[in-house]
Amino acid sequence: MALDTLETLAAPPLPATTRRRHLLDVDDWTPDELHALLMDAAHMRGVLAQSERLDTLRGRVLVNLFYENSTRTRVSFELAGKRLGADVTNVTASGSSVEKGESLRDTVRTLQALGAQIVVVRHSRAGAADLIAREIAGAVVNAGDGWHAHPTQALLDAFTLERHLGSVAGRRVVILGDILHSRVARSNVWALTALGAEVVLCGPPTLLPLAAVEMYTSRAVPGTGTPRRVAVEPRVERALAGADAVMVLRLQRERQQAGLLPSPREYTARYGLSPEHLRLARPGAVVLHPGPMNEGVEIDAAVAHGAASLIEEQVTNGVAVRMAVLALLAAGRMVESES
Amino acid sequence: MALDTLETLAAPPLPATTRRRHLLDVDDWTPDELHALLMDAAHMRGVLAQSERLDTLRGRVLVNLFYENSTRTRVSFELAGKRLGADVTNVTASGSSVEKGESLRDTVRTLQALGAQIVVVRHSRAGAADLIAREIAGAVVNAGDGWHAHPTQALLDAFTLERHLGSVAGRRVVILGDILHSRVARSNVWALTALGAEVVLCGPPTLLPLAAVEMYTSRAVPGTGTPRRVAVEPRVERALAGADAVMVLRLQRERQQAGLLPSPREYTARYGLSPEHLRLARPGAVVLHPGPMNEGVEIDAAVAHGAASLIEEQVTNGVAVRMAVLALLAAGRMVESES
Amino acid sequence: MALDTLETLAAPPLPATTRRRHLLDVDDWTPDELHALLMDAAHMRGVLAQSERLDTLRGRVLVNLFYENSTRTRVSFELAGKRLGADVTNVTASGSSVEKGESLRDTVRTLQALGAQIVVVRHSRAGAADLIAREIAGAVVNAGDGWHAHPTQALLDAFTLERHLGSVAGRRVVILGDILHSRVARSNVWALTALGAEVVLCGPPTLLPLAAVEMYTSRAVPGTGTPRRVAVEPRVERALAGADAVMVLRLQRERQQAGLLPSPREYTARYGLSPEHLRLARPGAVVLHPGPMNEGVEIDAAVAHGAASLIEEQVTNGVAVRMAVLALLAAGRMVESES
Repeated sequence: MALDTLETLAAPPLPATTRRRHLLDVDDWTPDELHALLMDAAHMRGVLAQSERLDTLRGRVLVNLFYENSTRTRVSFELAGKRLGADVTNVTASGSSVEKGESLRDTVRTLQALGAQIVVVRHSRAGAADLIAREIAGAVVNAGDGWHAHPTQALLDAFTLERHLGSVAGRRVVILGDILHSRVARSNVWALTALGAEVVLCGPPTLLPLAAVEMYTSRAVPGTGTPRRVAVEPRVERALAGADAVMVLRLQRERQQAGLLPSPREYTARYGLSPEHLRLARPGAVVLHPGPMNEGVEIDAAVAHGAASLIEEQVTNGVAVRMAVLALLAAGRMVESES
Repeated sequence: MALDTLETLAAPPLPATTRRRHLLDVDDWTPDELHALLMDAAHMRGVLAQSERLDTLRGRVLVNLFYENSTRTRVSFELAGKRLGADVTNVTASGSSVEKGESLRDTVRTLQALGAQIVVVRHSRAGAADLIAREIAGAVVNAGDGWHAHPTQALLDAFTLERHLGSVAGRRVVILGDILHSRVARSNVWALTALGAEVVLCGPPTLLPLAAVEMYTSRAVPGTGTPRRVAVEPRVERALAGADAVMVLRLQRERQQAGLLPSPREYTARYGLSPEHLRLARPGAVVLHPGPMNEGVEIDAAVAHGAASLIEEQVTNGVAVRMAVLALLAAGRMVESES
Repeated sequence: MALDTLETLAAPPLPATTRRRHLLDVDDWTPDELHALLMDAAHMRGVLAQSERLDTLRGRVLVNLFYENSTRTRVSFELAGKRLGADVTNVTASGSSVEKGESLRDTVRTLQALGAQIVVVRHSRAGAADLIAREIAGAVVNAGDGWHAHPTQALLDAFTLERHLGSVAGRRVVILGDILHSRVARSNVWALTALGAEVVLCGPPTLLPLAAVEMYTSRAVPGTGTPRRVAVEPRVERALAGADAVMVLRLQRERQQAGLLPSPREYTARYGLSPEHLRLARPGAVVLHPGPMNEGVEIDAAVAHGAASLIEEQVTNGVAVRMAVLALLAAGRMVESES
């Protein structure tokens, strides 16, 4: 079902020169676009370090529309928007018209009518951000929709990896955990393979979408036509061998209740990123996690807070990357409205 | 009971030159005051269109005190306040001292002591805004209190109608639905009749306050002494005949459970605004709804999103009207403090 | 248990010239430091009265991290931060990663990584603020942790008393109610005794920590070495005799369920601050309460809203005191980063 969703939603590749109105996914981003965004994010990190404020979004209204709770993502967008001078308003599902049975479509049209020029949306249903983008004239940023996509997470992960590995091209990045239900995994595959990395998907067989490889490899990188390098490997030892980076996914406890997993203890023993497991990777390999972590479940505390961990830096980079994304969309719209 | 409440709370008419400290209801507004406010709102729409910020409320604290959820109204006031330069803080009943059993009076005094100069309040009890206004030195804006009043909704409805009909004087406006429990209906009757419109109240007999007509007509328009033109008409066909505008009210599902309504399907068939029903009105008649809508219940989707619908524009106008209201109260207070 | 906690958490006295990074408690504050802070707060009251905005925290991010609800404290810090030019973001336990099982430590590290330079934290566990302060490089302000401490409440109480009594030195201040479970009482004892007041703790024997006196008196005032003057007195009449100020504590209804109290009616009759009880104090004695009040339980409405009550002024002073605290910590950090 997740794969169907992905294929249905996949947009056709765009030329590198296209100005973007929305950020719904990164599956159609060219390497040039990705590199340009990462350069902008590097600039924004400097802005953050100086405690500066820009006027990029001055007088514009950004609405954080969160149907799922997420402190880190909501605050990240909120601070990114404020740094760029926007008026930021938070709307959460509880305490909103959502509870009165209003449709997503009507809620979003209402937000637009209220003056929202940028809507950042998180929703439990795949395709929610795409649906919104069809409804409104403003910009939509997908902050996570069901199992489908989480593009700003993929961009901040790519930014974090490139800062530490120099370039991800030719690097081996292992994504470890519940691949099947992970929007973080999906968006990372698109972004990292477009940047030239080899991505290895590793996890329990019940949580590995075996058909996914064909789907990814059947869509060459836009702009360059390069084939994407994706592999599935259920054996942790084989997956980690030679890895330059390990991205650990959060284990949703619901999966265990659904019978898709053995006991938590067994999961941790076999798939948890312990110091022993990490030693199988290349010396100097780095560790990512989108957070929030279940320490002691999918990742050992010693790894989470160890020298290889870039987990806190991911969070910092997230603000910079989101500033770059918001500025990009604002620029796209300005060009559009001039023509 | 609702009528008793209304009569108890009704303030005596004020001369047109009075500066207002609060906006509790529009039942005592003169036509001159209403026209002046609508002119100000038109100016504010221009400010919004330019993404400008004013300094009208710079350094002042506006608190949105919402005991009932309402995304659109809360965000509307929040953005209106921010555009005028105010510091805006949201306080909701859940997560506030309310849960600790503190009285409304003490909560409001506390907010005032914290520096709130403007309190925007929504509450399920009629009279809540009036009670607050007696407690504090600052300005109070009623954002809906029980079945009593929702004055900014009435002002934005009047503004929307005047933008499209030129003037509402002499026009026939039908309010359709659960009149008995509607603060939106009540405030609209006061505002629209003061502006010279004829208001027809239409809905199921169990939800029509038959005695209301006498109450409205017994209070002439302040400033001019003109009698108000209000009629009750339970038959949809008769009500809609010759209508220049139809204002559809949200159907509260609780009413059905309370036995005040037949089945939802029957309600929709008889009182829902379908394209067929709308065809009974004048050509060019416009449609309003305060939102959030139950599409397919009190209003057909084709009407809600059709050419006659001004529903999204109501939302946009709401921000402009609230800016005008906040600026008016701020000016009133400044005059007062100078004398 | 509460006492153990206190002793474990008690920091060693600091020299008066130390710049502070955090405000975790006031148990180690010298009289000079307290007086300096109260002077700053007096200045900030002037800033508030003028509706001015300062640039002290411009470009800095303040996060209100509230694991317990408190409208007044959260809004107080929010407005204080905004007046000083900070970007303020609210994070509450419901709706945050907390519900996903993330540890306090990880939540705070994430907030820091997101750019939070000041974290204001309220938590039901004693020691939460101290734990955070060990985790992050930024400033931590304790906005109440379990039964342990509520330092800004003590500072605003001291400020309010000094404004009305001239100086609290030599004055008799009665703290009345559930002393055992009160962080407000604890922090007030440290601050008021350091300023030279005699503090009398009064309440039902089951809610009076008899051993507390020794603990307080065993730690002389830092900077001066003066012994602290604290007494326990379960008899209301004796406690109130000659009092210059009565600080009434909120009665937590849970205590009654836990069997620590007689009936509410009996509590009110014996320990509630009635006009009759207040008459036992000195003429001109003033009344404080940290809010929210249970009117008719621990305090009579006639006292709460009477001439002796400074309860609303406490709230106003709270914003000024918090501005002074935030400015102090910002200055401390600047000095630190220069060296």
